[in-house]
Amino acid sequence: MEMFFLAAAADCGEEVRFPAHESRHIVRACRHRSGDRLFATDGAGCELELELADANPQAVRARVLGRRVRPREPRVLLTLALGVIKPDRFSGVVEAATQLGASSVVPVLTARVVARLRPERLERMRRVAVEAMKSSTRTVVPDVTAPAGFDELLGMVGRHEQALVAYEGESGPGMADIVEPGAGSVLVIVGPEGGFEFGEVERLRAAGARSFSMGPRRLRSEVAAVAAVAGVMQLMSEMQGQRTADKPMERRCY
Amino acid sequence: MEMFFLAAAADCGEEVRFPAHESRHIVRACRHRSGDRLFATDGAGCELELELADANPQAVRARVLGRRVRPREPRVLLTLALGVIKPDRFSGVVEAATQLGASSVVPVLTARVVARLRPERLERMRRVAVEAMKSSTRTVVPDVTAPAGFDELLGMVGRHEQALVAYEGESGPGMADIVEPGAGSVLVIVGPEGGFEFGEVERLRAAGARSFSMGPRRLRSEVAAVAAVAGVMQLMSEMQGQRTADKPMERRCY
Repeated sequence: MEMFFLAAAADCGEEVRFPAHESRHIVRACRHRSGDRLFATDGAGCELELELADANPQAVRARVLGRRVRPREPRVLLTLALGVIKPDRFSGVVEAATQLGASSVVPVLTARVVARLRPERLERMRRVAVEAMKSSTRTVVPDVTAPAGFDELLGMVGRHEQALVAYEGESGPGMADIVEPGAGSVLVIVGPEGGFEFGEVERLRAAGARSFSMGPRRLRSEVAAVAAVAGVMQLMSEMQGQRTADKPMERRCY
Repeated sequence: MEMFFLAAAADCGEEVRFPAHESRHIVRACRHRSGDRLFATDGAGCELELELADANPQAVRARVLGRRVRPREPRVLLTLALGVIKPDRFSGVVEAATQLGASSVVPVLTARVVARLRPERLERMRRVAVEAMKSSTRTVVPDVTAPAGFDELLGMVGRHEQALVAYEGESGPGMADIVEPGAGSVLVIVGPEGGFEFGEVERLRAAGARSFSMGPRRLRSEVAAVAAVAGVMQLMSEMQGQRTADKPMERRCY
């Protein structure tokens, strides 16, 4: 299946019309013709099944065949908080985390952050998230937020059912020992290159986060982030063949 | 700890001498001085603990304080066989798989491969593996082999205790349902962009491989490969704080 982006998907009637940019993509790049079946999402959980009616590269029109709410979305809302790393590597994490099912990615300014995240790079990361949503056939695009300070991160800990921090200095439990498979929301915290200062980990623990080890081999931040997101999804049974139940979303789709 | 590369580590006496390239790296880039403690590995399992004796940027000399065999190496020998994808993305997989503990990476030429892997890019991937070994403080550098044909891949299935193939068309088990935590060698097979043809999966199954699903969200090859390697390592208890037992290696280190 091919997934296209349509901001107005949730509010449409029996027919939809794509804006010029996505129309060109549908007709020129993907070579779709009248009669083709395709899918569109608003990135907020609404999926439309469509039959292409008019392959106009300026304004594709399509007939609505069906609507679904949050298909293929994981049950868990996973927020990845990652210390700011070089923009190219951070973009790679956004791409992978989106495909793996994350709900939100928060760049965090910790003590050892040296990389800068300029507004135009943040915008680029948001476009990467939309493309990764489409390629992975997801129906929700993760938020990629503006960089958060450490105090903001501490505040986020209490707003998730579970908060986990990957810490190189942890000699005890691995992720499998502490993930609660039934949690509805999980915050996964990974440090920048150079890791966390011990005092930062102490403050995260005091706020309610649990630290875990990723083993004796030192991982670069972006590898740790991707492995941690994949690990939570696996431990929550989100990476297997049985489809997760579709879940109603707050914003009505039909 | 900082890890440097020294091909002759296993055969040394009480003192070692680094070649010019690594000497420059130790003295110029890492700014080490006489008296500093550092570590070196031959990438074949031998680790030396060293005290820097002469910080000559042409030929660093160091005194051997201790020797260890395969510290921080996983017990499982994991081979990642990945359909050939674009070189930059393949290099990213080599980097991540090395950090996560893979023993070997095999580029495979499957039916849907469109990318090319030129010899100079393969050489570059091997250098990436050495750098990733050092940064992750591993003591074994994974083999990055020349591209293998599909028949070679079929032959590899029987030479591993377990062979697993990630297949988008699999509606049943996930990795957690089929990994045998005690296996000494595991072959993880991931297709190129576009995935496997059904006939290829059938041939892999007939050779003894088991297919698994990575969930309903479509993953790009490189994300699937990294998530699969991390998943096997997690399921084999290789991503947690307890250090894995050091294992004797065939080539003697002392």
